[in-house]
Order: sequence, then structure tokens, then C-alpha cells
Amino acid sequence: MYIHGYGERESERLLAQASSVLCLLHGDTRFPPGSRVLEVGCGTGAQTVSLARNSPDAQIVAFDRATASLARAMERVAAAGLSNVELLHADLYALPFAAESFDHVFVCFVLEHLSDPIAALRLVKQLLKPGGSVTVFEGDHGSAYFHPHSAIAHRAIGCQVELQRRAGGNACIGRQLYPLLAESGYEAPCVTPRVVYVDATTPDLVDSFTRKTFTWMVESVREAALAARIIDAATFDAGIRDLYRAAEPDGVFCYTFFKGVAAKPAHLPQEGSNDRDV
Amino acid sequence: MYIHGYGERESERLLAQASSVLCLLHGDTRFPPGSRVLEVGCGTGAQTVSLARNSPDAQIVAFDRATASLARAMERVAAAGLSNVELLHADLYALPFAAESFDHVFVCFVLEHLSDPIAALRLVKQLLKPGGSVTVFEGDHGSAYFHPHSAIAHRAIGCQVELQRRAGGNACIGRQLYPLLAESGYEAPCVTPRVVYVDATTPDLVDSFTRKTFTWMVESVREAALAARIIDAATFDAGIRDLYRAAEPDGVFCYTFFKGVAAKPAHLPQEGSNDRDV
Repeated sequence: MYIHGYGERESERLLAQASSVLCLLHGDTRFPPGSRVLEVGCGTGAQTVSLARNSPDAQIVAFDRATASLARAMERVAAAGLSNVELLHADLYALPFAAESFDHVFVCFVLEHLSDPIAALRLVKQLLKPGGSVTVFEGDHGSAYFHPHSAIAHRAIGCQVELQRRAGGNACIGRQLYPLLAESGYEAPCVTPRVVYVDATTPDLVDSFTRKTFTWMVESVREAALAARIIDAATFDAGIRDLYRAAEPDGVFCYTFFKGVAAKPAHLPQEGSNDRDV
Repeated sequence: MYIHGYGERESERLLAQASSVLCLLHGDTRFPPGSRVLEVGCGTGAQTVSLARNSPDAQIVAFDRATASLARAMERVAAAGLSNVELLHADLYALPFAAESFDHVFVCFVLEHLSDPIAALRLVKQLLKPGGSVTVFEGDHGSAYFHPHSAIAHRAIGCQVELQRRAGGNACIGRQLYPLLAESGYEAPCVTPRVVYVDATTPDLVDSFTRKTFTWMVESVREAALAARIIDAATFDAGIRDLYRAAEPDGVFCYTFFKGVAAKPAHLPQEGSNDRDV
């Protein structure tokens, strides 16, 4: 279900995303000393490094089912000199962990690829101790807009959204974090938007985010979109040109990520009580 | 060019907007004691009250060309017990002020209605002392998205955008504040997005913003949109229903305002220098 691909330029995309936007996303995510934190689907470890650095006295257990990504994550964690990270090859739907064995769970850019994100959230809830928390991050491609406006650029973005939908995912899942967490039986979900606003006053973000994160990501689905006959080559290419246009000195680009935090109920609900998680 | 109308329900819309979102918008807008601040197009004074309260030792001069709105603004300012506000009936293009007679200018929800916002920004720049600042606020209807997603609701929003465009305005101007300020010859424009994120955890915002600010505003153009044959009644009404749907307990609504601050150059540019304001 992971449709972004694993090529070299893709690695640079993820890295660019990491270096320019990680502080906005993860700056206020800190776990207490001694806590045991599970990272679900760590991929190449871009988020893992932030997570482990921001909570140096927490123990991070991160897993992914893609061995190539996991190898890259291991290199990255080693290069960062982190000693509080354990990396495992595992699948979300067959995890080797005991119930209620984690204080917190961290799920970043994973739900967008799953056909049943509520099932996944309920699954990780079983691994959480009562009173533990889940922290979820997702982007939302429907939150992307830019100056100059371009309907064709939105059509190119729509190709990525449509391909992800056909693969069972949802590229516009960010806005749904609140109902997803509530329906999964977590308590007191708190969702906050994180806007990446980019104009010429932040040339590093123009390059690392507008060009090399967002536009490259859309551009990377060109062949798949053409093969699936979602769009013709000329329209797609014009859309990509218009996305690069938003990276010019008078251009503006906006994209919103969402962070959601919620708690596993501290006590098991009594029979006959108003349990949302039925 | 002000297409929102001036009816009773409209007043409530503006008031709802004011009470629920004013802190997000204006909480960090403060002008120094003794400074003279011009508010352009104060309308019914919803922003004027915040402006004057947040800078109690600044002198606010606010004007509007609509006498009915101005009368309401006078009531509002009196009811708030503010003594630092002077209200004038005047037109932006025929202002009775001397050049360089204000320390700061405040322009809130005005540029969206103008066919030439750059001309307006240059005009108010003449009223500013060198080194003075302009503060601009605008919404952006292209920043609206919601859960559940509804293409028909976006079409209903599009009616408001199209009517405002035909009236010479731009309902998606928020994203353009940076290039508008730069092109108008201001220095160091700094633009920050202000996201109104609404889910069931803030029922006051669900009611005051999702329903009674945004949806009512879109709903208010129904007759004009039908008369202009932009949409048929059934589609429009279905779109409005879907906007109200986003105010249900599992719904989410997002909208972004933009604040821009920029300075009038402290010294007149030397001839032959790199002056952007050519």
C-alpha cells in the first residue's frame, strides 16, 4: 500500500521533509524518562531520529515490514549516535509484543496507507497500557493550495490522491484524525493543525518543501498515473510546472499536517457502560 | 464590491466571527502607546473593538464609506466604552488625511473586495510615516476543507468565490498577501497563517464558526448565485447541507486566515537604487 516508491530521489524527498519540517511537527512531542514508546511503521527512520532525540531518556521500539527501509533506518539511527532506539523487522498485523506493554505509541505517516485505519488504531491500543497515549501524524493533500492558483496543478495532485485511493489508502486523511481516534475508542482526542506556509522569505523551505518534498512526491507518480490513464502526459506535466511556479520569488505554497494525541482509557469500561469502542 | 450583504443575520455572522476567532487573529497585534493607527474600511466595527482594546494607549482612526455600517460601528465602540477610537465617514480613494500622518495602518477583510489591492496598499503607504507598518488580514476560501469531504459543498463555496470575482474582488486573496505587500513597495513582509480548526471538542466554534460564520456566509449568496445561473438550486442546497454535515459530532472543518505585516521604507530610496516599488 506504500505507493511513494523507494528510489534514491524518494529518499532525498523524505530527508528534505524531515530536515525542514520536523521541528514544526515533532518539536512538542516529548515522552517521559523511562517510558517505553512504540513507533509503528518507522520506514527509513526519518521520524525515528527526531522522536529519539526529543525524548532521550525514553526507550523507543520502532518497526517496519520493509527490510530495505529498515536497513536505512538502522544506518540513520547509528549515524545519529542514538542509544535509545531498538529497530525490529515486523508487520503491524503480526506484532511480537505482549498486550499493554507500551506506555505510548507513535504513528507517523502510516494511517494514510491503510485500508482500515480504525482497525490499526484499535490494534495498537491493545499494546498500550491503560492511560497510555497514542500520537498520530498525517498530512492531507486536500490542504495544499498555492499562488498562483492552478486548476491543472490540482489535477496533478489529484493523481497521487487517486492512486493512493486505488491502493486502499487515503492521502487526505489528516483532517479525519479526530473522528478516527474517537471511533477507535480513545479518550479525549486532541488534534492540532501544523501549517507549512512557504514564501520567498524562507528560501530553504521553498527548496526543501515546495520543490523537493511536495512537488517531487507528486511528480513521482507520473508513470503510474499515465499507465492508469488517470491523466494525459501534457496535462500532468503542465500541472507539475505550475507547482514549480509556486516556488518562484512571488509564489506561495501552503500544506497542512495534523497531529492527534489521545489516551487509552485508564480503566476497562464496566459492562453496560457507555463504551464508544463497541 | 462588498457582496456579503448587510442584513440582520449578516450582522450576527460578523459578530460570531468576531467573538470566536478574534483572539486567534488579533491577539498578537499591539500598537505602541501614543501611536496613531488608521483602520481602513472598519465596517460594523467588529475588528475595531479588538484593535482598540489590544492597544488601549494608541489612537485609532477608523473609517468606512457605508453609513449604515459606520452607525453600527459607533454603537459598538460606545458600548465597549472605548475612548481611543475616532470614526469617520470616508472613502479609501478620497481620504481627508495628510501624507505621512499615521504610524501604522490596519487593513482587515478589505483587500478581498478591491479590484486593485496593490493600488490600495500603495495609497495607504502614502499615509504612513517612513518606518511605519501596515497590518493586513484576509481569509482564503480556497483554504476551506472539511470532513466528510463533499465536492458539492466545494461547488457551493465556489459560488461565493465566483460572485466575488465578478464584483471585482478575490475571495482567495489570503495566500497572496506576501506578493501583494512586496509588489506594493513595502519592506520585509512577514505573513503568518492562522488556521481555524474545528471539531467536536470545541462546540462553541462548531456553532459560531462552522455554522454561523462560514456556512451562513456561503448560504447568503444563494439567490445571487441562482440568479447568475452559476449553479442550480438543488445542487446549491445539497452543498449547504454538506457544510452543515461537517458541524456534526464526527465532522471537522478547517479554514485559514492570513496576517501580513510589512514596513514602509524608513528612507526614500536613492535614485538608481534597487527600488522594488517602480
